[in-house]
Amino acid sequence: MSLEIISETGCFGGIQGTYQHTSEVLGCDMRFSVYTPPAAAHGQVPVLWYLSGLTCTEENATVKAGFQRAASELGLMVICPDTSPRGDHVPDDDAYDFGKGAGFYVNATEDPWAKNFRMYDYITKELAEFVGSVGMTDMSRQGITGHSMGGHGALTIFLKNRDTFRSVSAFAPIVSPMNCPWGEKALTGYIGSDRAAWAEHDACALLERGGATDANILIDQGLADNFLEGQLKPELFEAACEKVGQKLTLRRHEGYDHSYFFISTFIEDHLRHHADALK
Amino acid sequence: MSLEIISETGCFGGIQGTYQHTSEVLGCDMRFSVYTPPAAAHGQVPVLWYLSGLTCTEENATVKAGFQRAASELGLMVICPDTSPRGDHVPDDDAYDFGKGAGFYVNATEDPWAKNFRMYDYITKELAEFVGSVGMTDMSRQGITGHSMGGHGALTIFLKNRDTFRSVSAFAPIVSPMNCPWGEKALTGYIGSDRAAWAEHDACALLERGGATDANILIDQGLADNFLEGQLKPELFEAACEKVGQKLTLRRHEGYDHSYFFISTFIEDHLRHHADALK
Repeated sequence: MSLEIISETGCFGGIQGTYQHTSEVLGCDMRFSVYTPPAAAHGQVPVLWYLSGLTCTEENATVKAGFQRAASELGLMVICPDTSPRGDHVPDDDAYDFGKGAGFYVNATEDPWAKNFRMYDYITKELAEFVGSVGMTDMSRQGITGHSMGGHGALTIFLKNRDTFRSVSAFAPIVSPMNCPWGEKALTGYIGSDRAAWAEHDACALLERGGATDANILIDQGLADNFLEGQLKPELFEAACEKVGQKLTLRRHEGYDHSYFFISTFIEDHLRHHADALK
Repeated sequence: MSLEIISETGCFGGIQGTYQHTSEVLGCDMRFSVYTPPAAAHGQVPVLWYLSGLTCTEENATVKAGFQRAASELGLMVICPDTSPRGDHVPDDDAYDFGKGAGFYVNATEDPWAKNFRMYDYITKELAEFVGSVGMTDMSRQGITGHSMGGHGALTIFLKNRDTFRSVSAFAPIVSPMNCPWGEKALTGYIGSDRAAWAEHDACALLERGGATDANILIDQGLADNFLEGQLKPELFEAACEKVGQKLTLRRHEGYDHSYFFISTFIEDHLRHHADALK
């Protein structure tokens, strides 16, 4: 895979970079960002994947979430992928919650999306293989986190790849796309109207089917989040965890909304959560 | 002054808000952001002004500089004003370095700019009076910082208001607009071609004329900053400080550029610098 450096600069003693490559899986050029901590100069480091929410690119969390300070201290590489395929030839939808910027971390099966919208394979196979091939990361120590749609991505990818990821967390995640308007629209559009197939992409359903994992799942949720009741519904995941005996730390925070001000406040706790599990 | 709340949300235990008001000085509606630390619930807190650089609004530093964590810990209120008047009726220029987004913290005297481009009076009088009137801040404890054009603003406003501000710092500031293309263009456009009048808006000239202050001035500068040699020239301010015996801590950082990744890395040091002086 050939890589174009879009930017690289010092940040908390490490390097914050943004890179572009041609994705064969997605059939388009893609960007992603990587924070390389100072510890990477002395040996392989664990890697934390950060999956972003609706409308985001690789840039939003990179410039707003403020993870670099703790990542530098803890020696974590942090990778932020984009949220969908990109380019004029890639089909799109006028809505903010479908098409570009809204890939939902699934492999689409419906036309016209099936050709490009394969974010699940892109992240878990193509991009992961590239990251491993560079040699700076210890791929036996991977964690995954994300926000909103990216929290859905983090939880589902973790639950479907229990041997790959050792830790997971999420900020205000969509925990059950089968049971919220954003998810119903996306799954219908990308996967089709057979609801049985949707369970493959629903964190609650995956947990109930696969049973508890060894991990402690950390979720933070703001109580002033406009999407809390209509879309996010953390109580559904709480119930699923209880049902299968999954360890969950779900923290509800009064006064916090869905923004990066919420994420930046708690990102250090998440990085420590992952660093502890990835020791 | 009537105030419209654009947004308010929890952030590191305090409140990050963005507000809009009608500025009489600028003749337009303006936005600014305020971080209110938890300590403000128990009494008046010191205030730190953060002035942004070319092309920025009040939003850039608010979402990218990452000052809220340290401001929460240290009990500092942080205010980010916009960088120029705004609105369809306000004159503009096609260039990124003149007109909207590029007010240079001066009171323009040249037409068509003189009517609206009065950022010096806006920040030092109108906005400061409003902030003081709210009663949450101890206006005898004010510090000022900024980035690039905003570093120029912070240094010049500090040096022209020695009784108002007790601390100052800057990130990659324009230290001598009389001696760089950005500054020459802006001062010619806003103030006219009489270079003698420019000295009122040049940190080096103001320092040499007014002599040393009691403050220790903190400046951070990245050595991978594209604007270092052509525009920023920290050595000019270093020489001016030496000439008048002004205490200066100028730190040069290899590998850091002009971006918010640079600012976010060192913002905590700046907040501690101000908090120490504002005790």
